[in-house]
Amino acid sequence: MKDKSLESIGEFGLIDIIKNNFNVKNNSSIVGIGDDSAVISKSKDEYFLISSDMLIEGIHFDLTYHPLKHLGYKAVSTNLSDIYSMNGFANQITINLGLSNRFSLNAIQEFHKGVKIACKEYKIDLVGGDTTSSKTGLIISVSAIGNVLKKKLTLRKTAKKNDIICVSGDLGRSYLGLQILEREKSVFFSNPEMQPELSNYKDLIEKQLKPKARKDLIEKFAEINIIPNSMIDISDGLASDLIHLSIQSKLGVKIYEEKLPILKSTILTANELNLNPTTCALNGGEDYELLFSVNEKDYNTLRDNGIDVTSIGYFTSNEKCTLVSKEDEIISLKAQGWKHF
Amino acid sequence: MKDKSLESIGEFGLIDIIKNNFNVKNNSSIVGIGDDSAVISKSKDEYFLISSDMLIEGIHFDLTYHPLKHLGYKAVSTNLSDIYSMNGFANQITINLGLSNRFSLNAIQEFHKGVKIACKEYKIDLVGGDTTSSKTGLIISVSAIGNVLKKKLTLRKTAKKNDIICVSGDLGRSYLGLQILEREKSVFFSNPEMQPELSNYKDLIEKQLKPKARKDLIEKFAEINIIPNSMIDISDGLASDLIHLSIQSKLGVKIYEEKLPILKSTILTANELNLNPTTCALNGGEDYELLFSVNEKDYNTLRDNGIDVTSIGYFTSNEKCTLVSKEDEIISLKAQGWKHF
Repeated sequence: MKDKSLESIGEFGLIDIIKNNFNVKNNSSIVGIGDDSAVISKSKDEYFLISSDMLIEGIHFDLTYHPLKHLGYKAVSTNLSDIYSMNGFANQITINLGLSNRFSLNAIQEFHKGVKIACKEYKIDLVGGDTTSSKTGLIISVSAIGNVLKKKLTLRKTAKKNDIICVSGDLGRSYLGLQILEREKSVFFSNPEMQPELSNYKDLIEKQLKPKARKDLIEKFAEINIIPNSMIDISDGLASDLIHLSIQSKLGVKIYEEKLPILKSTILTANELNLNPTTCALNGGEDYELLFSVNEKDYNTLRDNGIDVTSIGYFTSNEKCTLVSKEDEIISLKAQGWKHF
Repeated sequence: MKDKSLESIGEFGLIDIIKNNFNVKNNSSIVGIGDDSAVISKSKDEYFLISSDMLIEGIHFDLTYHPLKHLGYKAVSTNLSDIYSMNGFANQITINLGLSNRFSLNAIQEFHKGVKIACKEYKIDLVGGDTTSSKTGLIISVSAIGNVLKKKLTLRKTAKKNDIICVSGDLGRSYLGLQILEREKSVFFSNPEMQPELSNYKDLIEKQLKPKARKDLIEKFAEINIIPNSMIDISDGLASDLIHLSIQSKLGVKIYEEKLPILKSTILTANELNLNPTTCALNGGEDYELLFSVNEKDYNTLRDNGIDVTSIGYFTSNEKCTLVSKEDEIISLKAQGWKHF
């Protein structure tokens, strides 16, 4: 077989190859590679959930503008998001750190201050991990452990035809926060006496630097007795994550541009940067909002209880993923994985 | 407070600082930072175990002589070792990979071949993880998940006075394998036409490149109904890992140089390289053997069943860690953490 470059395969292609190569064999492995968390047997009524993610300096974060405290918070909350998106609750995390010798004890303690704030906010414990040296920069690998009632487990592959597709919060904000931070960084490098102008973009930048995981929504689901048919957290971008749900559920999706929840501040900033707000919402990524589907009755219950979610479209039987534009054009959605290779 | 460098604190100092900063709060967190695995409540009779480790190219391995297939095997087996050392069994792993674009699909598949061999040998499933790009080299972060019967859980902190200290297999071999590989690498760089001479050192090099985890010993313990009083796997080196048991159990240890299990090939290679074989056994590290303590009765049971373990000394009440040399000198044992900063 001819060898291939990673660039030509892409992130999702590589995950598929690994997934197809590693079928699960133990009875205790309920769900393996391919959802937001792995699912492992626990007791008569419950499953364990485990998710794991790695953040690498220069790829996932830039310490010239990402304060270590916020980074500690973000490393935790983005991992917990993968537990909540299974409709479960997180209880523990482990953190592996690779540290170059430019980091001092104070720097590491700043990072851990953020970890501690997240532990307190989400009521989880840091129970282990590894610290090692790194030749180049900071490397953070987090595993999150949680549990879910068997009857409440929500997967990517179980969306139903005609399900209403919902998204929590708003989209595109984190991506635009990143663009502003990158712009101010390049302004600073070309003219170090310029002060960065960030005050107008506070909510965008905050969403990028210390995004919250939507534990609150999973608590609401439990309160009002809603179990979504399918769910994923939006890390790669709405379009990519919708396509994950679509492929795994063997259904199509149809969403409407005019329904996408985009804040006014996001639209204004996109216009300022000559970016299309809809493209930012579809492909920006790092929203860490929950994307899920419910039947019409459950959607009405969500709406009647004033839950912070927006319906953006529905699942179809034709396996196509499309966006209906404001001008009534039908546009195919495209997945985006890594942009790094 | 004055800031400190990581070099001045050292690996174990840093772990202590993190540990003291993160007490566990959830009822489900049974053991947090400070043992080989974290312990989490599972069911009436069982605990869940999780351990996590990171391997970074240029720090933990050198791809000029470490075949990717062996590295895949080692990344798994060294993590499983941390589950076995709790007297439990592993069932699942997750692997996070950071890949630079110099890796091709074939290279990653070589790595996964080794992972697959380990999965089969230890009867575990790869159930998840993350693949991302890296700017410099290969980064591997593995989490291993297992379980243990509550009554069989074996911690570092529960050694008893007069317990006999035992070690499985032999010591120093992996370290000397590494020294040989490093020597042949520098010979090769100074004269690329020289062929490496490795055939005489096969068992040393194999122990370094693809060490086995001692699942077999945990199975033997179960068979003959032995529960050690304390246990740890030897990753940092016998001396460091004995000191972990000593500090956490609030006891001293006394071990005997003449009792240390060192193979003849290890001694010959140490002599050839002008290294002291005892120092290699004490401080070499990466043996991935099990170091544990039992009472005299259980030790006799182990011996009567012909189990592959060596008694090297015993726990004392005076909290000192000493080695009695072949010349009857009393030598203090010293811990070694990172050498990288």
